[in-house]
Formats: sequence, structure tokens, C-alpha cells
Amino acid sequence: MVEKRKPIQVEEAVKRVMEQDVAPKFETVNIEDSYGRFLAEDLLASHDVPAFDRSPYDGFAIRSEDTNEANSNNPIEFDVIGEIGAGYVFEGEVKPLQAVRIMTGAPIPNGCDAVVMLELTKEVSDNKILIKRLFKKGDNISYQGEDTKEGTVLVKKGTQINPGIVALLATFGYDQVTVAKKPVIGVIATGSELLNVDEPLAPGKIRNSNAYMIMAQIERAGGQAIYFGKLNDDFAACLTATKEALSEVDMLITTGGVSVGDYDYVPAILKELGATVLFNKVAMRPGSVTTVASVDGKMVYGLSGNPSACYVGFELFVRPMLRRALYNTYPHLQKVKATLGTDFPKPNPFMRLVRAKIDFIEGKLVASPSGVDKSGIVSSLGGADCLLLLPGGTRGYEKGMSVDVLLLEDHQGSEWPWNNIVPSYR
Amino acid sequence: MVEKRKPIQVEEAVKRVMEQDVAPKFETVNIEDSYGRFLAEDLLASHDVPAFDRSPYDGFAIRSEDTNEANSNNPIEFDVIGEIGAGYVFEGEVKPLQAVRIMTGAPIPNGCDAVVMLELTKEVSDNKILIKRLFKKGDNISYQGEDTKEGTVLVKKGTQINPGIVALLATFGYDQVTVAKKPVIGVIATGSELLNVDEPLAPGKIRNSNAYMIMAQIERAGGQAIYFGKLNDDFAACLTATKEALSEVDMLITTGGVSVGDYDYVPAILKELGATVLFNKVAMRPGSVTTVASVDGKMVYGLSGNPSACYVGFELFVRPMLRRALYNTYPHLQKVKATLGTDFPKPNPFMRLVRAKIDFIEGKLVASPSGVDKSGIVSSLGGADCLLLLPGGTRGYEKGMSVDVLLLEDHQGSEWPWNNIVPSYR
Repeated sequence: MVEKRKPIQVEEAVKRVMEQDVAPKFETVNIEDSYGRFLAEDLLASHDVPAFDRSPYDGFAIRSEDTNEANSNNPIEFDVIGEIGAGYVFEGEVKPLQAVRIMTGAPIPNGCDAVVMLELTKEVSDNKILIKRLFKKGDNISYQGEDTKEGTVLVKKGTQINPGIVALLATFGYDQVTVAKKPVIGVIATGSELLNVDEPLAPGKIRNSNAYMIMAQIERAGGQAIYFGKLNDDFAACLTATKEALSEVDMLITTGGVSVGDYDYVPAILKELGATVLFNKVAMRPGSVTTVASVDGKMVYGLSGNPSACYVGFELFVRPMLRRALYNTYPHLQKVKATLGTDFPKPNPFMRLVRAKIDFIEGKLVASPSGVDKSGIVSSLGGADCLLLLPGGTRGYEKGMSVDVLLLEDHQGSEWPWNNIVPSYR
Repeated sequence: MVEKRKPIQVEEAVKRVMEQDVAPKFETVNIEDSYGRFLAEDLLASHDVPAFDRSPYDGFAIRSEDTNEANSNNPIEFDVIGEIGAGYVFEGEVKPLQAVRIMTGAPIPNGCDAVVMLELTKEVSDNKILIKRLFKKGDNISYQGEDTKEGTVLVKKGTQINPGIVALLATFGYDQVTVAKKPVIGVIATGSELLNVDEPLAPGKIRNSNAYMIMAQIERAGGQAIYFGKLNDDFAACLTATKEALSEVDMLITTGGVSVGDYDYVPAILKELGATVLFNKVAMRPGSVTTVASVDGKMVYGLSGNPSACYVGFELFVRPMLRRALYNTYPHLQKVKATLGTDFPKPNPFMRLVRAKIDFIEGKLVASPSGVDKSGIVSSLGGADCLLLLPGGTRGYEKGMSVDVLLLEDHQGSEWPWNNIVPSYR
């Protein structure tokens, strides 16, 4: 009667997920709306930067050779023959012992090859200045293309747009930006024990927290969530809802209903939908009863109803496919080494993923569990910004050990974090 | 003719900014819209968690004393007198050698004090099971309040809402969440050299990138940006635009027009508005000509027109006031120690803030400049995720030195990062 399931290793489970296809889609947005989106094309320099030789300071443009004899005992006098604000161009040629007043960013007038900063000149009358030192050709000139040559790839496709990238988009005239369309991810919560958030508590009931948590995780990862509501443990209703949801989304997540209990319908629904089940048990804690399947080319995730397991299942199995749909080539959470901040003596046959908090102490990463790691416990989730990876089959972990950690609030990502994860040396 | 300005230290400049008042405002949003917002009230546990004694597994609820004699040679037979799904309550009392089938999350029936996991039982008929080992009182029971007691402060006011906090909000019935209203920050770009992003390049001109960059920085910090457009270097037009903008926003940022050049109107406009100027020169590179003022209790920032200086000026002087308006008590960028990844030989009398990239290498933080740090250069902004703090008056910095770093993509923040910044030991 009870279905027997064979657990697979976490690495193998993630591999099976990533073997599935997901086709990124793109759309065009205004530059004002591009922050946080993912580039669907390489960002190319559309021209040299600077686009012309220009002055980096307020000062005077001169011919450097005119200062060859200048020193504090021999100030050289220049005629100021004009001035040029940023945005304007000086017409005409600058001749020996002539200078042009120039503003930051303005183009260097013809004939000039150096700029003297305002502070290093002395005004002797309305159109005469003194210069008391030697300047060389090129002094204080930002040359065309010295920052960036036209055609350079400045930022790669699949990168999340930060404020600096927005500045690049503006500089190079991208008022419209081609970005990845946000993958649409459906969320269904199952379980007759679930109350809506606005309902009062009742005996035997708990409020539905997983759906809202997952929607926030989807948003954090760069997707768009659609909530299809909370279903009772009723096979026919769940089947209909799942079918309808699937037709509207790129991927679908259900929470709850994946255990081996009598009321857990997800396996039956997947069968009815003709799904290819990639796995239904993973050698990890929490989240061992996670099910992942593919239905007509769409990913369907049956995450555990347990909040911690649900959270971890999302980050391990949903996030990388979501990020791939954003053209991102580092779709997994970034893996880093950290020093364990407290003992973690609990041994476990399976790999443990422990919610933790990372601190930067004197230049080193230190990770400590953010609460008692009992899977039903929700209150330590709020303070977690990483997951400790503690491989199973050991006798526990001690404070001071080096451990692998996945960063949750991460902008960098990882190509493949699942090799060489360090087990306890005990 | 050229105004003389006395530079103040960065620490003193930030201190003057933070001495100003900013009044946070709050509003109520639906839980679905709460991710990324800042809590305007402490988040309290509205009930115990669990709210009742419950089963963490699928299994059988029993009276533990009935297993006192159980072992593999002496399996004890139990009558299964009912079953209880999550969300339901078992009515009635369980008597000796009786068991109730129980699902994960369901309340423990009266009379029972332990749960036996499904895998550890043997079904002998439809309503008989065998148990082959001893269970103790409390085994596999999640007790009421063992996670969290009613009234506990789970998350402090001013914390940014992450997916784990969303789960807490749902668990405790907060379908409406009181969050900080996003401060509205106006942005005005000045400079006749500026083109709109969609305009073709022209001699002497550059596209306006600062305004879009700052709007993204405002969004990243948690505010709401309003763009008031790009103004030519025309005093009357700038004054009118500044007045109008100020009436619609909580704070105002202008970029450009802060140097000592003839075309720089910001000082004159501030005078006309009766502003209290907190400072107009800071001993830092880039961004030394940053001006900060207060007009009728509103902050007005005159940031440099130079992209790097503008970026840094925002993070140092605008972000902390913006975060304070979000009730946040760690409003500054988080300061950490890192190892310098490359030489930085350029000496400087002022403190340098160098855009850099942080890497986590074997459990240590390593920071390396993300591009040539010439202030006019925009292309290194895209790859920066931190700012190196290199105090001035030294002979430069060497690879391997320990330096202070401000993290740009940070969720933690710092109460006051501006003391004990380590200068070069050279």
C-alpha cells in the first residue's frame, strides 16, 4: 500500500532537472523599467567612449609646446581667445600663445593638445592668463576611445541589470532594452489543513504560508508568480486546477501532497497528466519527498508542504531553471567556503541543507545556523541568507570547520555548485 | 571670480547629512505586494507555533506506554481505530493498544503522547499494525509553542521583507502588512552637453546617463524615483524646475552643475531657495564637488555630473537618508574587511572610493578594482559590487593588504561605517 521510493543524491537530482529544456523568451522595455531585468542580448558599445577628445576638468586648452619654457620664475602669458562650455564646439584653430577657456566634458579645440586646470593658472586680466609650469602633449585630455572602443561587449547576455549597467545602456543610446521575459510560474497550495492568511486559526489548521513564500522567492529569482489558490485534498479538484494552471504558465509549483500519506495526490495527478517523473525522493534534509516532473515540456514541481523543505526545494530545483529562462549562465546559487560558526553535532545519513546566516568577520566568511533546524520551524527562515551544505554519512560538524555554503541573496550565481562538496573530516 | 571651497572629511560630511531629520511614513499593502518592502512595525507572533500539539510525520499516534515491552522479538499489535488527515481533529479518546493513523501536521488525538512513523510499523490487516520497538512520551510530537511563543518579536521594524519574512507574515495572519512608504526622490539632470538617451550623438555632446543610473540606485535602495528631465545650463529654467520638483518630492537630486565652472548654477539656485548648505566640497575622489543642502526640511543633493562621482555621492549621502526614511537602523552600506586583490599604487591626498568587485576565495573576501578608476569612465560601473575605501595621504596600496570595503548589493547595512578606516601601512 505504501509506495516505496528510492532516494537519489542531490547532485543527480539537480542534474536531471537541468537536462530538461526551457526556452527563454524576450521582450523590449524602456530603459526606466530595465533595472533588475536580465539582458537578452550582449550589451555592445555603440560608439567610442569618449566619443571625441575632451577635457576632464574645468581649465584652459592650450598648445603644450607653448609651455616649454614655463616655470615659477618665468610665467608665460596666454591670450584667452574664447570659451567653450560642455556641449559646445570651438570653431577655428588655436594659435601659439593662445588659450581657450574649457569646461569639463567639452571637446578639445583644434590646435590644442593639453588642458591646464583652472587652479594652476593665474588670471591677469579679462583675457590674459599666466601659466607657470611645463605641460606635456596629452596632459589632462581624455582621448576618444580611451575608455571603450566601439563594438566592445560591455556586459554579457543573461546578466542582471544593476544601476551601473543602466548607466551603460543610457550612455550607448539604448532607450529601449531587450530583456528576458519574466518566466511565469504558477503556484498551487494543497492541503485541507490550510487556512487563508486572513482566516482565524482553527483546531488542526495552519495558515497557508508556503504559497506566499514561494511567490516572493519567484520574484527574488526574477520570475513572475501567479497564484492559483489553495486546494483541499480532493483528487478531482486538484487535477482540474493543475490542468488549467499548466495551460497558463511556463512552470508550475505545487506545495504539499507529495508525501506517501493517503491524502497526497500529487503522484496520482502526475500520472493522470502523463508526466515524466524525474525523481520523487532526494537524499537530503529537509525536502526528501520533493517530486519533479515534466509535462508536455513544462516543468512541474511537487514541493513539500513543510516550509523549510519547500524553501530549499525551490532554491535547488526551481531557481536554476528560472534563471536559465532568463538567459543566465550561472543559474545556481553561488557556492562559497565559510567557517562554521557553531557546532552542528546532529549526524544524518542524507545531505543536510541548513538555513544559516553569513557574517563577514575580519575578512573571512563565517556561517551559523539561523535557528533550530527542525523542518517544521518557520521562524528561522526570516534570518537566513545562506544554506549550509552538510554532506551526510558523518558524525556531525564542529565550530571552526570549513564548510560549503550556498548564498541566497546573491547576484553572481554559480555554473555548477554540486561537485567537491566537503564532508566532515570527523 | 572662482569660488574657494574648503573640503571636509567624508566622515564629517556623512555626519552632517545624518544630523538632518527625515520623517518615515507608512502605508498598508497586501501580503502579495510586501516582498522587498521595509517593515514599519515589529513583526509579532500572533499565536504559538505550533498552535497545537501536532505530528511532524505521517504515521500512527499511540500511547507510548503501550510500547514498553516492544522489541523485534516481541512486536506489539495495535488496533487502528481511526484516521486523521491534516486539517481535521480526532474526536474521542485513544485507549490502551489503540492507534490512530495520523498525517503530517495533524493534531495529536487525546490520550496519545507519541507518533510512530509509517516506515516503522507493519500493517497486518486493514485495522491492525505491529510496532517492534519502544517509543517514549513526546517522540515525534511537535508541541504547541515549541517553535515560537505568542507575542515574540520575530522581525524588527525597518527590516527589508525577504521570502522567509513573507512566510512569517502569512503564518501569523498578516494579510495586510504595514510597511514604510517609499520615499519619493526627484531627479534633475543639468548640462547643455546632455543628449536624451534616444538622440544621436553630436559633436561635444554626451547622452544623459546619470539620471537613469540614479533612478536605478534609488530603486535598489528602496525608494521611488521621479524624473523631472534634463535641463540646459540656464539659471532661470533650473530655478523654476527645482522649485516645482521640490514641491512634489521628499528629497531632490540634481546631477551636474556643481563644479566651480562658470556654467554651474547649483550654488546660485540653492542661495535663491534659501537653502542651508551642509557642505559643498568633500575630501574624497571621485565626488569632491558634491553639495548637500537642506531646503525647508527637505534634502537637496547636488551630485557631480561625472558618472562615478555621481554614483558614489548617491551611495554615501543619499542612500542612508533614504534608508532612514524606511525605518532602517542600519542605513549605511555594510563595511567589511577584504584583502586587496591587486596593487593600487596611485597616491592621493583625499580618500579614494574605488569601484571594485568582491570575490569569495577559500572563505576570504578579496576585492579588486573593477576597471581603471578614472572618474570619467563609465564602463567599470557595471561590474562593481563594492567600493574600496582607501584613505588619503599615503603612498598607495599593495596587493594583499587588508582594506575596508563598502558592499553595494547588501541586505544588511551598517549603523556607522565611518570610523577606524584603515590607511595604508606604507
